[in-house]
Amino acid sequence: MSSGETVKVGMLGMGTVGGGVAAILQRNGSLLARKTGIKLELQRVLVRDPSRRRAVDLPPQIYTTDPEMVVKDPSIDVVVELMGGIEPARTLISAALKENKFVVTANKDLMARHGQELLQLAYCYGEDIFFEASVGGGIPLIRPLKHCLVANRIERMVGIINGTTNYILTRMSLDDMDFQEALSKAQELGFAEADPSNDLEGRDAAYKLTILAGLAFDCSLNPDDLFTQGISGVTRADIHYARELGYTIKLLAVAEQMPTGLALGVHPALVPLTHPLATVYDEFNAIFIKGDLIGETMFYGRGAGALPTASAVVADIIDAAYSLQSGVKDRPSPGKSNNRKITLLPLSALSSRFYVRLQARDLPGVFGAVATAFGEEEVSLDMIIQKRKTNGMAEIVLVTHDVNEERFYRSLKRVARLPAIEPEPGVFRVLG
Amino acid sequence: MSSGETVKVGMLGMGTVGGGVAAILQRNGSLLARKTGIKLELQRVLVRDPSRRRAVDLPPQIYTTDPEMVVKDPSIDVVVELMGGIEPARTLISAALKENKFVVTANKDLMARHGQELLQLAYCYGEDIFFEASVGGGIPLIRPLKHCLVANRIERMVGIINGTTNYILTRMSLDDMDFQEALSKAQELGFAEADPSNDLEGRDAAYKLTILAGLAFDCSLNPDDLFTQGISGVTRADIHYARELGYTIKLLAVAEQMPTGLALGVHPALVPLTHPLATVYDEFNAIFIKGDLIGETMFYGRGAGALPTASAVVADIIDAAYSLQSGVKDRPSPGKSNNRKITLLPLSALSSRFYVRLQARDLPGVFGAVATAFGEEEVSLDMIIQKRKTNGMAEIVLVTHDVNEERFYRSLKRVARLPAIEPEPGVFRVLG
Repeated sequence: MSSGETVKVGMLGMGTVGGGVAAILQRNGSLLARKTGIKLELQRVLVRDPSRRRAVDLPPQIYTTDPEMVVKDPSIDVVVELMGGIEPARTLISAALKENKFVVTANKDLMARHGQELLQLAYCYGEDIFFEASVGGGIPLIRPLKHCLVANRIERMVGIINGTTNYILTRMSLDDMDFQEALSKAQELGFAEADPSNDLEGRDAAYKLTILAGLAFDCSLNPDDLFTQGISGVTRADIHYARELGYTIKLLAVAEQMPTGLALGVHPALVPLTHPLATVYDEFNAIFIKGDLIGETMFYGRGAGALPTASAVVADIIDAAYSLQSGVKDRPSPGKSNNRKITLLPLSALSSRFYVRLQARDLPGVFGAVATAFGEEEVSLDMIIQKRKTNGMAEIVLVTHDVNEERFYRSLKRVARLPAIEPEPGVFRVLG
Repeated sequence: MSSGETVKVGMLGMGTVGGGVAAILQRNGSLLARKTGIKLELQRVLVRDPSRRRAVDLPPQIYTTDPEMVVKDPSIDVVVELMGGIEPARTLISAALKENKFVVTANKDLMARHGQELLQLAYCYGEDIFFEASVGGGIPLIRPLKHCLVANRIERMVGIINGTTNYILTRMSLDDMDFQEALSKAQELGFAEADPSNDLEGRDAAYKLTILAGLAFDCSLNPDDLFTQGISGVTRADIHYARELGYTIKLLAVAEQMPTGLALGVHPALVPLTHPLATVYDEFNAIFIKGDLIGETMFYGRGAGALPTASAVVADIIDAAYSLQSGVKDRPSPGKSNNRKITLLPLSALSSRFYVRLQARDLPGVFGAVATAFGEEEVSLDMIIQKRKTNGMAEIVLVTHDVNEERFYRSLKRVARLPAIEPEPGVFRVLG
């Protein structure tokens, strides 16, 4: 470490999170020093335009447009990467590790795609990468998984890890908005981007799940291998029916260890109103984890935002500083073991209950035929709602008991062949 | 460290949690070694009766009845104290620290009463005490507070941290049991002791709050200074009314930083059904924390039980082993700073909404008088329910708006003086 208990920090990028980190060091710096005995000093910050006015007032000589001034400065102990995206973040982090610096990053895409490679590189150089802020904003997730639950075999993980979709589903549920209305509201408030497809289609959640499941199940995953189903198929009617049946609808990221492999994916699901995930509203996130020892545990909080994310970044910098103080150059890290090969299973490997919303003409005869079609595949039904709509069409909503997915879809095909049934039923899993 | 990457553990006490720790080391030992690079070896275990048969099969020479064989054995790196109670645990932990051993403890009473003194002693000897398991069983709380939220000023903490009372209130709420019935059920299932007063009166929660608030607000507290109100005054009627108004009733441990000091205590309260704490059922615990950066965050899980608690103990042993590996003898710890003096405020320092259930004779005239009595103290009412009971008595239930507690109790005194009002109204705070 440079001098005494001062740790010198170099930062790559100064957007909202970077601004948050700088603000925290100014605002809570003395609190941090009192609690930890460590003084953090911002030595150099890579920006595109040093002359731009920013909310946090830093001495002008701190700014640079040359990344080497950060990653190669021998006085810098910890490099904090907040640029986002794959390149040049990947190259700069690699360079920093090779210069024997600890790295802190909030880069979800990079950790999901190249986390394994970077952790391996860190391990080779006796360094470490801290990435708590890459998933779930300020919510402690990485550290609890790596440390607090270390003795557990994780059996299952179910999370609400995308704030945009959770905000939209919450507004649809609590304010009776339809999807478009809720999306516009989310965009207005900055909870959804102008092009929200990454969030809506579940890809953002898939990236986060890749990082979390990699840690929890001690393996290396590729986000492209994950099944994802977005929320655009969730209608206001589904939300009403779900509530009538005692459920709410959430976009879930799910991973479950099966005897034959790991089943994981992202999809909307009915969540019982009594489940802790049901009270996760608006832009909040939560991860529900089941371990063999600890049983069920959940972590809840704001999954995004400048200050929550910056709070996680600063905690990681402090952890890096502790490691620096101790001079440990060979601290075991998950990077050591999680090249473990794992068999990825489709979600159909999990048995589940299913919710189905059908549109039907001529209700009385049809209902018996629907029930028979399910019965013939031994799919038993738990709950049923029938409602007549104004134009003579009827809606049949049902929830199955636990059923093998293949069998369920076979029965659904039978149903779809019934002449009175309209195409494209609404189908969602039900959280058990 | 003794040899290579093996860490030798001495254990004081082998009850349910100790048995759990031994079982984990047998069952998940290779998983742990793979994840962490550390092999934990149980070197010696202090027991009363070495000949007793136990669920976990350990070689007989591991057992000893002489505590010095544990705390003075030079080959032992980490001493795990699982005896409970103040003495001899306090003396033995002190001895272990003086022998330069790291200490892990699950001892809530000891950490609440003497945590400060022991952390200070550990600091003097360059050691550390890990006490994650002393609060909230397996739920990660201490580590998130010490590490993940380190950059935050904690503003508020609200927790359900007693499993017995939460089980009882859950059964009253979901199964419509009365207090006695729910208590018997809890005792039957082992969620309540034969003498449950420590739990029911909120003392157990007060001890846990002492430990958590000491860490969160960076100060030293005495559990005897805390206001506690138990759940014996909560009736089935209160639970019904609460639900009608959109609330459930929970025993809450509350701490809030005010400009003039720290207000904290334990009391039953109405929790909105949409609040994440509302879906914390049965023996589960959860802590809701608000930090200046992270905003609102919550940690949820099983607050007790052999394996969850043992899971936290083993995570602490691994952390101690990391510290051992690094050879850090001066790692900053909260023990360094939290002799900080803090002004303890009564709960009345917090403004709150209040729930009141009154029994009244002759309803029509009375109600106006009740409303007037509150109005005269400028206590404004938010929600009101009136119900006539069979024997001519009426029940008036109301919820105030946010009000200063002194003013509220003055108004309640006015109400109590009304001739038609029966004594002993039910009064609970309402979580904001």
